[in-house]
Amino acid sequence: MDLPTRFDWQKLQQFCCDIFVKAGVADEKAKIVAESLIQADLRGVDSHGVVRTSIYMKRIEQSMIDPHAEVAIEKENDVSALLNGNNNFGSVVGSKALQLAITKAKKQGVAIVGVRGSNHFGTGAYYALKAIEQNMILVVMSNASQTMPPTGGVRPFIGTNPLAVGIPAGNHRPYLLDMATSVVARGKIIVASQKGESIPLGWAIDKEGNPTTDANEALEGSVLPLGGPKGYGISMFIDIFSGVLTGAGFGKYVNNMYENWEKPQNVGHFFIALDINRFMNIKQFKQRMDLYIDDIKAEPKANGVDEILIPGELEFRREIERKKNGILLPEKVVSELKEIGSRYGLEIEQSRFQGERAKDGVTDVSK
Amino acid sequence: MDLPTRFDWQKLQQFCCDIFVKAGVADEKAKIVAESLIQADLRGVDSHGVVRTSIYMKRIEQSMIDPHAEVAIEKENDVSALLNGNNNFGSVVGSKALQLAITKAKKQGVAIVGVRGSNHFGTGAYYALKAIEQNMILVVMSNASQTMPPTGGVRPFIGTNPLAVGIPAGNHRPYLLDMATSVVARGKIIVASQKGESIPLGWAIDKEGNPTTDANEALEGSVLPLGGPKGYGISMFIDIFSGVLTGAGFGKYVNNMYENWEKPQNVGHFFIALDINRFMNIKQFKQRMDLYIDDIKAEPKANGVDEILIPGELEFRREIERKKNGILLPEKVVSELKEIGSRYGLEIEQSRFQGERAKDGVTDVSK
Ligand SMILES: NC(=O)c1ccc[n+]([C@@H]2O[C@H](COP(=O)([O-])OP(=O)(O)OC[C@H]3O[C@@H](n4cnc5c(N)ncnc54)[C@H](O)[C@@H]3O)[C@@H](O)[C@H]2O)c1
Ligand SMILES: NC(=O)c1ccc[n+]([C@@H]2O[C@H](COP(=O)([O-])OP(=O)(O)OC[C@H]3O[C@@H](n4cnc5c(N)ncnc54)[C@H](O)[C@@H]3O)[C@@H](O)[C@H]2O)c1
Repeated sequence: MDLPTRFDWQKLQQFCCDIFVKAGVADEKAKIVAESLIQADLRGVDSHGVVRTSIYMKRIEQSMIDPHAEVAIEKENDVSALLNGNNNFGSVVGSKALQLAITKAKKQGVAIVGVRGSNHFGTGAYYALKAIEQNMILVVMSNASQTMPPTGGVRPFIGTNPLAVGIPAGNHRPYLLDMATSVVARGKIIVASQKGESIPLGWAIDKEGNPTTDANEALEGSVLPLGGPKGYGISMFIDIFSGVLTGAGFGKYVNNMYENWEKPQNVGHFFIALDINRFMNIKQFKQRMDLYIDDIKAEPKANGVDEILIPGELEFRREIERKKNGILLPEKVVSELKEIGSRYGLEIEQSRFQGERAKDGVTDVSK
Repeated sequence: MDLPTRFDWQKLQQFCCDIFVKAGVADEKAKIVAESLIQADLRGVDSHGVVRTSIYMKRIEQSMIDPHAEVAIEKENDVSALLNGNNNFGSVVGSKALQLAITKAKKQGVAIVGVRGSNHFGTGAYYALKAIEQNMILVVMSNASQTMPPTGGVRPFIGTNPLAVGIPAGNHRPYLLDMATSVVARGKIIVASQKGESIPLGWAIDKEGNPTTDANEALEGSVLPLGGPKGYGISMFIDIFSGVLTGAGFGKYVNNMYENWEKPQNVGHFFIALDINRFMNIKQFKQRMDLYIDDIKAEPKANGVDEILIPGELEFRREIERKKNGILLPEKVVSELKEIGSRYGLEIEQSRFQGERAKDGVTDVSK
C-alpha cells in the first residue's frame, strides 16, 4: 500500500513553487522551475523531478545559482541568438531561449539559439513539449558535467548530454524523443547493485576501464555512452554545440552541480526550432505523421511484446496515470522536502494525494 | 601479396567518372558521383565506395535513376528550401542541397534544406567535409530503405538512416561523426557468418524477433538500432525530417535500391548548415576545439588502448594511407568494374596502382 506517499501534482507543484519564492526567486521564475520538475515526475522521469528541489535550493542558498540574474541576449539576428544565462536557473534560461527560438522560427522558418552561463535545465522534453504545442519542431540539447569516458578512456570526461526532439502529430500523440546519451541512466545500475544483481555487459566499465557485469564495480567506474563510439560521438557534438560554440563550459569545464561549490556550473544549451509550414502544410504533415505511426504500430511484434511504442508514448501514458492517481515519491525525497518546507514555513503534508484510488487500482506504469 | 588488386585513387575516380559519362550522365554530375564513391573508399568506408558503381549503373540503365533530371527548388526563403531531386543521383541532388544550405547559412547564420525525390546519397561525410572546408558546421541526414525493426518489432521497418555532423577544428583534424543508426553495419555480420563466428548479443535479432548470437540467424532476421529504443528513436526522427517533412518516402515508402525495379527510391535528405561566426569568432572557436581535442586525447586510457580517437580521425588516417598506397578492392568488385568497363569500352586495368609500396610496407588501417 503506497498510497500515503502519493502526492497531488498540482499541490506539489505549488509547494515547490512556494519554496522557491520563499528563497527569493521571482514568482514567474519559480513557476517555471516548479513546473519543469513536476512535469518530469508526471512523465515518470523521476530522476529529474522534485528529487532535484533540494540541490537546486542548496545552490541558491550557497550563491551558486543567481535567481535574480537577467538572461542577456549577447548576439542576435533574425534567425539566431546567443544568450548568457548569467547563472540563473537552467529552466528559466532555457525557457527564454526556447521562446526566442520559436518566435524567430515562426517568422523565418528556422532559428538557432545557443546558451552559455546556464545551469542544469532538467529534461529536454520540457522545452520540446512547449514547441509541439505551437506546432513547431524542436531539437534541444544540453551539455552536463562529466560522467562518461570517451571510447578507450577509463574515467568520466563527457556528460550524459541529453538530446530531445519533439515533432507534432495529428490524432496520435506527438513524437517526443528525450534521452541521455548513455546506454542507461546510472540509476539503473544503483538499483541492480542494491538488489545484488549483475548488469548486462556494455552498460559500464570498472575503474580500470574494463567491461564489467558487476554493478558495484560499475558504480566505481563509469557509465558508457550508448552504442560505443557512436554515442560518444553524439555526446561530443552536443558538447560542442552547447559548450564550445556558445562560450559555455565543455568537457571538464562544466562544473558538477553536486560537488563543485566554488564556481557556477556554466552549462550550455542549444535549441533549433523549425517551422513545418515552410516545407508542408501543417495539416498534411500531421496526416503523414499519423500514417507513419499507424504503419509502425501495425508491424508484427516480437514474442511477449504487446505493442510497438513511439518515442514519448510511455511518458504520455504515465502522465495521464499520475495526474489521476498522484505522484509516488520515495520516503527519502519526502523527508527532504519536509525539511526544506519546515525551514520556510511550508507543509509538504498538505500536498498529499487525497483522491480515490482509480477503480482499476493504482497502476503505476513506471519502469 | 595484395598489391595487384590495389588501385590508384585518381585513376579509379576517372574510370568511374568516364563510366557514368558513357552512360549519358553530364560531365559535372558524373564527377560528383565518382568523387563521392572514391572518397568513401579512401576513407575506408568500403561499403559506400566503388562497390556501388554497378548498382548505380544498373539503375540508370533500367531508368530507375534519371541523370538528366533538373533538381527543382519547390519552396525557398532566405533560410530554408525544399528541393525535389526529380530522381537524379543522390549525390548530385545532395550536392545541390548542400550548396544552397551553405550559401544561405553564410548570409543568414543558419539554413535548412529538405530534399525529396532523391536516391541513395552515399556517405554523409561527403557533404560534411565540403561544409567544413568552408568553415561551416553541417548536420546532414538521409533516410534509407527498410533494414531495422522498431523496438519490439520483428522485421525491417526503418532504414539504418545515417546521421553525420561535421565541425571544423584548428590544428587538429575536424570533428566528423558519420554513422548509420544501426549497432553495426550488416557487413560485419556477414563477415562473422563467413568465418563461422558468433556475434555479440544486441547486434541483431532472428526472424522471430528473438535476440541472437548466431550470425546466420541474424542474417535471416534484422540488424538492430544502436542503443535499443534510443537508436530506434534517432533513426525515426531522421526519417521524419528527411521523409515525412519533405514529401519524400518514409518507412515502407522508401523503395529498395536493389530490389525494387518498378519505382524510383524517393529517398529524402535533410541538411542544417550553421555559421560559426554568429556565435563566436571562427579563430577563437577553433582554439576551443583544439583545446577540447587536446583534453580528450590526454585522458588516461583503458588497457590495450594506445590512443583516444576523435570521430572521423580513423577515416582521415585511412585516407592518407590509401592515397599513398592505393585502394584495395576485392576481386568481386574488380570483376564487376571490368565487366561494366568492357561494355563501354573502358579498361579498369589502367587504374591499377603502380607506385612503390611505401617503405613501411602496405599497412592498411581498415577495420
Ligand atoms: N539536464 C541534464 O543534464 C540531463 C542529462 C541526462 C539526461 N537528462 C534527462 O534525463 C531523462 C531520461 O533520459 P533516459 O535516456 O534515461 O530516458 P529513457 O531511456 O527512459 O528514454 C529515452 C527515450 O526512449 C523512449 N523509449 C523508451 N522505451 C521505448 C520503447 N520501447 N519504444 C519507443 N520509445 C521508447 C522514451 O520515450 C524516451 O524518449 C531525459 O528527460 C533527459 O532529458 C538530463
Ligand atoms: N546513404 C545511406 O543510405 C546510408 C545508410 C547507412 C549508412 N551510411 C553510411 O555508412 C557509413 C558507415 O557507417 P557506420 O555506422 O558503419 O560507421 P562506423 O561504425 O565505422 O563509424 C561511425 C562513426 O564512429 C567513429 N568512430 C569509430 N570508432 C571510433 C573510435 N574508437 N573513437 C572515436 N570515433 C570512432 C567514426 O569516425 C565514424 O564517425 C557512413 O558513412 C554513413 O553515412 C549511408
